[in-house]
Amino acid sequence: MTDSWLTTPEPTGFGLDNLPYGTVVHGDRPPQIAIAIGGHAFPLGAAAEAGLFDGVLPDTGVLTAPNLDRLLAAGPAAWRAVRARATELLGSRSHAEAVRPLLVRLDAVSNPLPFTVADYVDFYSSREHAENLGRIFRPDSAPLLPNWTHLPIGYHGRSGTVVVSGTPIMRPHGQRLPAPGAEPVFGPTTRLDIEAEVGFVVGVPTRMGQTVSVDEFADHVFGAVLVNDWSARDIQAWEYQPLGPFLGKSFATSISPWIVPLEALAEARVAPPRQDPVPLPHLLGDHWGYDLSLRVDLNGTTVSRPPFAGLYWTPAQQLAHMTSNGASLRTGDLFASGTVSGPQPGQRGSLIELTWNGAEPVRLADGSTRGFLADGDTVVLGGSAPGRDGTRIGFGAVTGTIHSR
Amino acid sequence: MTDSWLTTPEPTGFGLDNLPYGTVVHGDRPPQIAIAIGGHAFPLGAAAEAGLFDGVLPDTGVLTAPNLDRLLAAGPAAWRAVRARATELLGSRSHAEAVRPLLVRLDAVSNPLPFTVADYVDFYSSREHAENLGRIFRPDSAPLLPNWTHLPIGYHGRSGTVVVSGTPIMRPHGQRLPAPGAEPVFGPTTRLDIEAEVGFVVGVPTRMGQTVSVDEFADHVFGAVLVNDWSARDIQAWEYQPLGPFLGKSFATSISPWIVPLEALAEARVAPPRQDPVPLPHLLGDHWGYDLSLRVDLNGTTVSRPPFAGLYWTPAQQLAHMTSNGASLRTGDLFASGTVSGPQPGQRGSLIELTWNGAEPVRLADGSTRGFLADGDTVVLGGSAPGRDGTRIGFGAVTGTIHSR
Repeated sequence: MTDSWLTTPEPTGFGLDNLPYGTVVHGDRPPQIAIAIGGHAFPLGAAAEAGLFDGVLPDTGVLTAPNLDRLLAAGPAAWRAVRARATELLGSRSHAEAVRPLLVRLDAVSNPLPFTVADYVDFYSSREHAENLGRIFRPDSAPLLPNWTHLPIGYHGRSGTVVVSGTPIMRPHGQRLPAPGAEPVFGPTTRLDIEAEVGFVVGVPTRMGQTVSVDEFADHVFGAVLVNDWSARDIQAWEYQPLGPFLGKSFATSISPWIVPLEALAEARVAPPRQDPVPLPHLLGDHWGYDLSLRVDLNGTTVSRPPFAGLYWTPAQQLAHMTSNGASLRTGDLFASGTVSGPQPGQRGSLIELTWNGAEPVRLADGSTRGFLADGDTVVLGGSAPGRDGTRIGFGAVTGTIHSR
Repeated sequence: MTDSWLTTPEPTGFGLDNLPYGTVVHGDRPPQIAIAIGGHAFPLGAAAEAGLFDGVLPDTGVLTAPNLDRLLAAGPAAWRAVRARATELLGSRSHAEAVRPLLVRLDAVSNPLPFTVADYVDFYSSREHAENLGRIFRPDSAPLLPNWTHLPIGYHGRSGTVVVSGTPIMRPHGQRLPAPGAEPVFGPTTRLDIEAEVGFVVGVPTRMGQTVSVDEFADHVFGAVLVNDWSARDIQAWEYQPLGPFLGKSFATSISPWIVPLEALAEARVAPPRQDPVPLPHLLGDHWGYDLSLRVDLNGTTVSRPPFAGLYWTPAQQLAHMTSNGASLRTGDLFASGTVSGPQPGQRGSLIELTWNGAEPVRLADGSTRGFLADGDTVVLGGSAPGRDGTRIGFGAVTGTIHSR
């Protein structure tokens, strides 16, 4: 059963093999969780109230909640049960009469943040990205630091400024050096950048002292979103030593409104890249990469197509590393890949790489060029994965427009 | 009115000029918020139900809530009103008959985490600490990096592992280099450390794009707690470049159970240290340091007495910096000072400084020595501030005992 009775004139990426989850507001009704199907949202709160999920979960409050937090916490058995029932409801024409009145066009809903972000961790798992930044910032040294091939480098970001696609991005102010060795000045960033990333959302929490092995990834992770980790390169360059990025990142991180469930990404699994040296045992196990194709559009011009499949450290290794010290997980923890860059110039996931630190501006369709982002610019990050029978599964896009403050 | 009708045989630090807030559990009753007074907790949920706070707040749900989140969000006018009424109730003998039956001995309650920690930011604001670490880690360079005197360096920590005093601390495992240039190994940290800090708790949130000037500190900050930011120095040393500390810190951060309100710290205000160079304008304004005295006890031996008064960057500057890029605040944001170290060897707030990276172990009362923490060790971080009339205001202690995993 791969086709919905809901036919759409063209592929939306939201077919029956995807069924991503989000939160929607429609009319006067308070926020409720929903599944995207074709050009529509299928509101699960309304569906549960109509009895369409009776007997599927011990606690139907999970489906009538104002966001996905309770579904995330409910765990894999509940995730499978809801997905199986939704597949039935949206796949079998016998349910069309009951389901159709509940559907709402996607362009008629707004999408609040789909879940409460607990901790936000950003990794640095693309070797090509790390090497590019090493070459730009430390031209006289080896592009990778010695620790990089031994563990997935990462750090904590600001979870309070993780926002949903469409939220306006205010150009941050901050301290920067106008020239090497000069005195710092304060003002709007002159080097506002994007980072095209994929983030994974934790459902099932752990206790302090508990670890999550590479093999246990799917017991805890609910699904994936696209992430644009906006970055002010001048602020970041001045502040980041010795404790890492702070205000150059903390002003905003945008995520896509729909979480693609891990089950929908089964067809996208690929072997992880060969790792040399072989990682220590706590980073080994049964794991895989995901063959996701990303796309970065700047004011309508596609400026990059980063491939996620070649990511050096896999999401399961990131999670195993993050918990290897005994740090607990909470429902709603979000961990992102770091900028995804491929080996080709057109596959780089940030402007600092695409323009080589501003030296080689990108040209847009209107003839203008960009080293970094200008006020009024709109960035759209999209992504897709292989679905069944040669189709594609879509991620919801992450859009953001730059405003001056 | 500085004395309570509740006389105590010896000063507890919890006099009428303090009135710190926490969350207590007593008997079968669910968690409720409380004020510490002498050797007792004054449960505000029960007091509100008994009508003792009638008319004080438009929304009495603030006082019957299971933790301090709603009081934090209620803002300065509400904070003043509750404090004024509590001062009356606990200060005037005419209320003794009504209040006494509600009081519970502090040793008969347990203290859950007093509030929901939103984002946790750790600064690096003690010049002596930063210089000590610079000398230890980069002996051939200037002890301070060029940015340090221009802005309060900080980074985001893991808010999900901020725990209340008394929570067992599991020795973290992680990757470390057994010797410089050797291959990394994985296992329990061999260099488990403490960091004696003071943290400030945000009550009133802001919008994205809004900043909080140095002058607006008290409009947003509710009060202060003591913080022990446990650190695994070997894990930290191997992982921290280029994105900062991660697993060397994220396993646990302990805070005191009672939040001392900003109003109670009025007597502790001191002029901030002279700053050279003069900071950029967004870090200037009407601000002050706090003359807090910290104490670190390891298995009953006092190993350090860090002074908070000399902190180079003040809490108001930290907050102004943290929001200067437009990052929003949430109720429950916690920002800590970083390790507090004074100029004297006995004033260093971490073992790595006290033992100069383990080379000069500290000797405990039982004759044993420590370079870093051993399993079974108990650390107690205490603190006090000048109160009225020569008395001292006490912070609740932060205790933690090390367990192997």
